[in-house]
Amino acid sequence: MKVNRSELLPIIKRALREDIGTGDLTTETLIKQQDQSKAIIKTKETGVIAGLEVVELVFKTVDSNVNLEFLVNEGDQVASNTILAKVKGSTAALLTGERVALNFLQRMSGITTKTKKFCDSVAGLNVRITDTRKTTPSLRSLEKYAVKVGGGYNHRQGLYDAVMIKDNHLQAVGSIKKAVQQARNNISHTTKIEVETENLEQVKEAIKAKADIIMLDNMGLELLRTAVELIEGRAIVEASGGITIDTVVDVAKTGVDVISVGALTHSIDSLDISLDFQGSDNNG
Amino acid sequence: MKVNRSELLPIIKRALREDIGTGDLTTETLIKQQDQSKAIIKTKETGVIAGLEVVELVFKTVDSNVNLEFLVNEGDQVASNTILAKVKGSTAALLTGERVALNFLQRMSGITTKTKKFCDSVAGLNVRITDTRKTTPSLRSLEKYAVKVGGGYNHRQGLYDAVMIKDNHLQAVGSIKKAVQQARNNISHTTKIEVETENLEQVKEAIKAKADIIMLDNMGLELLRTAVELIEGRAIVEASGGITIDTVVDVAKTGVDVISVGALTHSIDSLDISLDFQGSDNNG
Amino acid sequence: MKVNRSELLPIIKRALREDIGTGDLTTETLIKQQDQSKAIIKTKETGVIAGLEVVELVFKTVDSNVNLEFLVNEGDQVASNTILAKVKGSTAALLTGERVALNFLQRMSGITTKTKKFCDSVAGLNVRITDTRKTTPSLRSLEKYAVKVGGGYNHRQGLYDAVMIKDNHLQAVGSIKKAVQQARNNISHTTKIEVETENLEQVKEAIKAKADIIMLDNMGLELLRTAVELIEGRAIVEASGGITIDTVVDVAKTGVDVISVGALTHSIDSLDISLDFQGSDNNG
Amino acid sequence: MKVNRSELLPIIKRALREDIGTGDLTTETLIKQQDQSKAIIKTKETGVIAGLEVVELVFKTVDSNVNLEFLVNEGDQVASNTILAKVKGSTAALLTGERVALNFLQRMSGITTKTKKFCDSVAGLNVRITDTRKTTPSLRSLEKYAVKVGGGYNHRQGLYDAVMIKDNHLQAVGSIKKAVQQARNNISHTTKIEVETENLEQVKEAIKAKADIIMLDNMGLELLRTAVELIEGRAIVEASGGITIDTVVDVAKTGVDVISVGALTHSIDSLDISLDFQGSDNNG
Amino acid sequence: MKVNRSELLPIIKRALREDIGTGDLTTETLIKQQDQSKAIIKTKETGVIAGLEVVELVFKTVDSNVNLEFLVNEGDQVASNTILAKVKGSTAALLTGERVALNFLQRMSGITTKTKKFCDSVAGLNVRITDTRKTTPSLRSLEKYAVKVGGGYNHRQGLYDAVMIKDNHLQAVGSIKKAVQQARNNISHTTKIEVETENLEQVKEAIKAKADIIMLDNMGLELLRTAVELIEGRAIVEASGGITIDTVVDVAKTGVDVISVGALTHSIDSLDISLDFQGSDNNG
Amino acid sequence: MKVNRSELLPIIKRALREDIGTGDLTTETLIKQQDQSKAIIKTKETGVIAGLEVVELVFKTVDSNVNLEFLVNEGDQVASNTILAKVKGSTAALLTGERVALNFLQRMSGITTKTKKFCDSVAGLNVRITDTRKTTPSLRSLEKYAVKVGGGYNHRQGLYDAVMIKDNHLQAVGSIKKAVQQARNNISHTTKIEVETENLEQVKEAIKAKADIIMLDNMGLELLRTAVELIEGRAIVEASGGITIDTVVDVAKTGVDVISVGALTHSIDSLDISLDFQGSDNNG
Repeated sequence: MKVNRSELLPIIKRALREDIGTGDLTTETLIKQQDQSKAIIKTKETGVIAGLEVVELVFKTVDSNVNLEFLVNEGDQVASNTILAKVKGSTAALLTGERVALNFLQRMSGITTKTKKFCDSVAGLNVRITDTRKTTPSLRSLEKYAVKVGGGYNHRQGLYDAVMIKDNHLQAVGSIKKAVQQARNNISHTTKIEVETENLEQVKEAIKAKADIIMLDNMGLELLRTAVELIEGRAIVEASGGITIDTVVDVAKTGVDVISVGALTHSIDSLDISLDFQGSDNNG
Repeated sequence: MKVNRSELLPIIKRALREDIGTGDLTTETLIKQQDQSKAIIKTKETGVIAGLEVVELVFKTVDSNVNLEFLVNEGDQVASNTILAKVKGSTAALLTGERVALNFLQRMSGITTKTKKFCDSVAGLNVRITDTRKTTPSLRSLEKYAVKVGGGYNHRQGLYDAVMIKDNHLQAVGSIKKAVQQARNNISHTTKIEVETENLEQVKEAIKAKADIIMLDNMGLELLRTAVELIEGRAIVEASGGITIDTVVDVAKTGVDVISVGALTHSIDSLDISLDFQGSDNNG
Repeated sequence: MKVNRSELLPIIKRALREDIGTGDLTTETLIKQQDQSKAIIKTKETGVIAGLEVVELVFKTVDSNVNLEFLVNEGDQVASNTILAKVKGSTAALLTGERVALNFLQRMSGITTKTKKFCDSVAGLNVRITDTRKTTPSLRSLEKYAVKVGGGYNHRQGLYDAVMIKDNHLQAVGSIKKAVQQARNNISHTTKIEVETENLEQVKEAIKAKADIIMLDNMGLELLRTAVELIEGRAIVEASGGITIDTVVDVAKTGVDVISVGALTHSIDSLDISLDFQGSDNNG
Repeated sequence: MKVNRSELLPIIKRALREDIGTGDLTTETLIKQQDQSKAIIKTKETGVIAGLEVVELVFKTVDSNVNLEFLVNEGDQVASNTILAKVKGSTAALLTGERVALNFLQRMSGITTKTKKFCDSVAGLNVRITDTRKTTPSLRSLEKYAVKVGGGYNHRQGLYDAVMIKDNHLQAVGSIKKAVQQARNNISHTTKIEVETENLEQVKEAIKAKADIIMLDNMGLELLRTAVELIEGRAIVEASGGITIDTVVDVAKTGVDVISVGALTHSIDSLDISLDFQGSDNNG
Repeated sequence: MKVNRSELLPIIKRALREDIGTGDLTTETLIKQQDQSKAIIKTKETGVIAGLEVVELVFKTVDSNVNLEFLVNEGDQVASNTILAKVKGSTAALLTGERVALNFLQRMSGITTKTKKFCDSVAGLNVRITDTRKTTPSLRSLEKYAVKVGGGYNHRQGLYDAVMIKDNHLQAVGSIKKAVQQARNNISHTTKIEVETENLEQVKEAIKAKADIIMLDNMGLELLRTAVELIEGRAIVEASGGITIDTVVDVAKTGVDVISVGALTHSIDSLDISLDFQGSDNNG
Repeated sequence: MKVNRSELLPIIKRALREDIGTGDLTTETLIKQQDQSKAIIKTKETGVIAGLEVVELVFKTVDSNVNLEFLVNEGDQVASNTILAKVKGSTAALLTGERVALNFLQRMSGITTKTKKFCDSVAGLNVRITDTRKTTPSLRSLEKYAVKVGGGYNHRQGLYDAVMIKDNHLQAVGSIKKAVQQARNNISHTTKIEVETENLEQVKEAIKAKADIIMLDNMGLELLRTAVELIEGRAIVEASGGITIDTVVDVAKTGVDVISVGALTHSIDSLDISLDFQGSDNNG
């Protein structure tokens, strides 16, 4: 698994431009261009790591001569005070890139850590934890990547790669049957159709309409179980709506195939990680 | 107070492009271009609102004919189930813009809500709560705006608008005195110099060097008090490092001028807000 | 059906920039800014029209005051010498935008005309004609739109919205079974998997692996028929490979669900269309 | 002769982004990052090759470690089944870049092949075959390059590098004499003026006005001959308008200097070329 | 004559972004959004005006509701203390846009003023004053426009719209004859060829080679006269190299057709122009 | 001191694109790709050099294999006919990049030369010469850099990194006291406030309001002296307004801390510098 580099580079450049603007006043003023330093990146709390490649690309975008040696792998669960990487290179580049690199790493690791908790909870149960489209604007690809590093799965990437028929769409079309048919008649044969349902009546309609995926929105455990039985494998079953780390196991046990959790990306604590200088070589 | 529009538009366009990609398959397939709808945006929990203007710009970027009527003001503290806005326009535009609009609004309101809690805690005490550079890459301007809506203040925007001398810079230069002097001799006379200190020795040096701002990093309450006394108004005093909603009042009472809190932006829960259709007019 | 505007505008701006560069020397030199003209856009051969909206957006990008009245609809089959639109506005804008507008319209109508011929051939047979990824670099969305206007369907948009397992992928993984399984275990539950097969053995493997779509590549009619029988509705069946207007009916009659035709976009004749001035009002 | 690299790179990046989007699902899922493969690019019909450099840049943009060995030269006429290049590198990069690389190569070679036919027809006659501005929006530079590889010449690049006075411009100005004069008085002394004429009267006016180039639009052979005689070398003579491979020789024999042919770029069949894997080395 | 808008807008947006960055701190802090003001733009020294349209577009880009009334025309020679325009609109927009608007106007008017002086000097003599490629990087189109407003002419726009054979090119090819021939055989028939010469020998070669334009580089008056006689109207004659306002008349009198002057754009004094507020309406 | 590379590259690319457009016709036509040349860059008048790094980046952007050896350092004062650099590489790259490289170098060195004169004039006096925001649109960072190379200092970068309260702002707010207070209450504690004053009354108000910097606008020498005495070190004192090389020493002697000079960037003569070929190696 890896981050899509051509997508990543513009994101990183934007982040650096946002922070550096017309120049890093402090570093440009105080640090000599030829000064070299060593630093370590280490955790200050326990968690699961994602974004090492992004960190590397941030520093290499600032100065292609910075070198990183990673001591852990993407997706590793690590204790507090674990050294994640050794960084070596121009003191100026390390100081200028530090904050942006950590901003990515901390946020991505926060998502991965949260995802891992959900996935571990339902380990052994035949169910996927997926993200949603409730991601940070312009960072979706990185956040969906972090979910995968944590053992989760991705839901659709956006509005363009799958059909999802919701209540509001139904109002406009009239019935699930007609909506699914109309969608199928217009979209590519390579595209799936998901229908959001709120009660068993709608579930039955969605089955008849041959929806590829049936989403059970905000249903209680009892209802979920009944819906799963009704569907009987004729569609992929997805549970969604306010599912937390406390309720996820019970939801999983109802037999749904997929549990989608918006909070994996919309409400996360950055993992506490710092970059500490280990020594500098001031040539001059 | 308002968001910088020329900065905002590219952010919104990127967010829409990210979500819509080659097209909103569901809406394009099921909704007629001429269909009109009404919807409301409402809270599903209590909080403080920021980002209404962003929501408007998202919808207007999708379709300039969408109209919004706001029932609350930016910065209002609202209860759950409060209607924030009425939205009217093309059904397709409402459906296509919904998720991106909410992603911004929920995230910004989450930051504002958290900031407001910190600010309310220290109300009456002569202290500012500020953000840091620990923001989401590429969304810094929006996040710093949300902090201000919540009653907080901004720290520097980036590496380019103030000098901040940290431990690592000191290693390279040798002493606070020399570092401040070297910075002052090179930067514009319009730029301030902040020095990060970890003990009273460094505080004294920073005073002597005539730093404009002295940051007290991760100091205990006792140390903070002593530092404040030492500085005696000769520099702005900023406390920083792991300050939480539980400790912020005590820190404020030490007499520092500024308390900077990374968690305002790096660890937040999106405020739960939804867009609900109230009726559609399907012309045909 | 309509073109995605936010995608379209940058394409049009690039095309105009490419043609206008530092300025339309002839028009700037000879035409007064206030001069107004009327013109018609008309066919010079029989065909099916696509791209009217693009034409409008080209002229309005040059000068928002240009007005177009369309006399035909997108997708209309028209005879030679049919007036498609009346254009009114600044003489300079009409002259400067003419070539770019026609370049889009002629090319898109060429694709639509060709697609219509394929679709008409198989009318009444239960089969879809689809495009492929053999589109003109950077114009895929417009070309896929033109295919739809002509009655065709789109295949996947790109490498990102469906899995297509080809011979070369199989070499790397070992077997269709393993490849489909590995794909399914990693992609979103909203994504379909298509397998390209070259013989009945592979078709059988693909059925067992529960591929969503089975593509029959370059098979003769007999083989196609046998494959359709084998699959028996358990997957969508797609025929592909060198299918022409002469062979498409026979292929359709084998019972396949989808026929994909690269030539719809990779080998087309632009439809001959011209813009003729009907009179100018030279104010001065 | 070579493609302008700084212009080319953004075109290639756009094409790759268009195809890859958020990621090549199939390749990312099935192919190991370290897998290496060899492939050949070979023709499936006879034709003339253009775009080898573009192919190389496409693959190197995906992965700078891909290596290409070309077995033919740009502009070579080759038989069906000719190996054009051997490609070696990461299996993933080869699979991800294949379609975009071929889309460029096939289209450019299609243009070159068609151009070569026109040029060969008039070999020995003192005449140039040129393209027009009827090119694919945003690919003009590549298409004009392909025309040159086929032995053709370029007409003006766009509206900015030469003056071309057409009927519609004349309406606005009144006479060829006045139009040429007005143009000459305003443009750079480094810019040529071409006048489009439809009859001998206009030809005479254009000669008197000292047009640098006189275009004879849609004239019959007899008229062309008379016009050439009239002009007597005082201007470059260009024939244009519906000239085909069947009529080009006769037109050339009238003594015109230049024959411009829109169909070289607006109506072409892509040359059939494929990329075939020759073996993979799956490290693991 | 007018500035090319589609080229202009990105230049203006870049200039505003450069100045405003993350926000106009002073204006955002002190000025109410609803405040309206009137201001005048006036000269503080005598000169010739260019750039009024750019000024308008700068303010309208900041806020589309700002209104400008121009009291002079582009190209007018005006005295000191002449009011050029009245500006009305949001106080904030006027303050934020002021500096960028003036930076363009002062610089362009500086160029126009200098150009006008050269042109006035040679009035009545049959000669053109032209600019060169010695323009400010990324502002060439605006500077070349300003030259035209001042009565000057443009030389080629860049390396792409005319051939100019210099000494260094000759070294590589061997002779003027061969160079002109090689160029003519490869470029479009719509493109002119200019040859730079340093002595009469080269002038003779250039005549024989049928160069369209012969440039006489850094020649004395006597040499210029002889060269003009030699050329005898068979090519356009251009004098270049260190020609100043003091020598331009004598150069013009040698009979050359064109005098190109780098200093028109590479060494200019901005015209002193200011924006003065005339009154504000502070609604609140 | 160095130019910010990530900011610089887009500026250089824009400049090259502006000059090269669709291709350097002369070089592409006459020069063989494999030809190599040597050239020198040398002054044709006395001056101070800035922009060597930009020159290098221009050539390396055209062709990464071009090599430069610098014989002087940034900021060196050099005589006429001094060789600044030796350039070696592809003949085509040298010819294509020459003009853009020199356009940057001549302009920057012009600024540096002018700045150096001002700084030398006040050597020994305790005062800074600074630039203003009167820079060339889109080249501010390069011009401010050139000022620093010449021994000058930068004023604020733009509207975003310091507060500057001018007359027009005061109109809106009412008093200096209120304006400073309102600004301080809203901006970051890291941002300075400068107040522009026109008389001693305003100076006194600004002192009371505790402005960080007091600007004395267009004051005579006597007034400047009095103001400096009044302020008595309680704020940084800046003189501004029409200060020339003739008046700068007297202004400096009044005791002000800073003298800002718009003409450093708005009215400069490019330094005369040329690139001369020393020999070519035409392989073929």
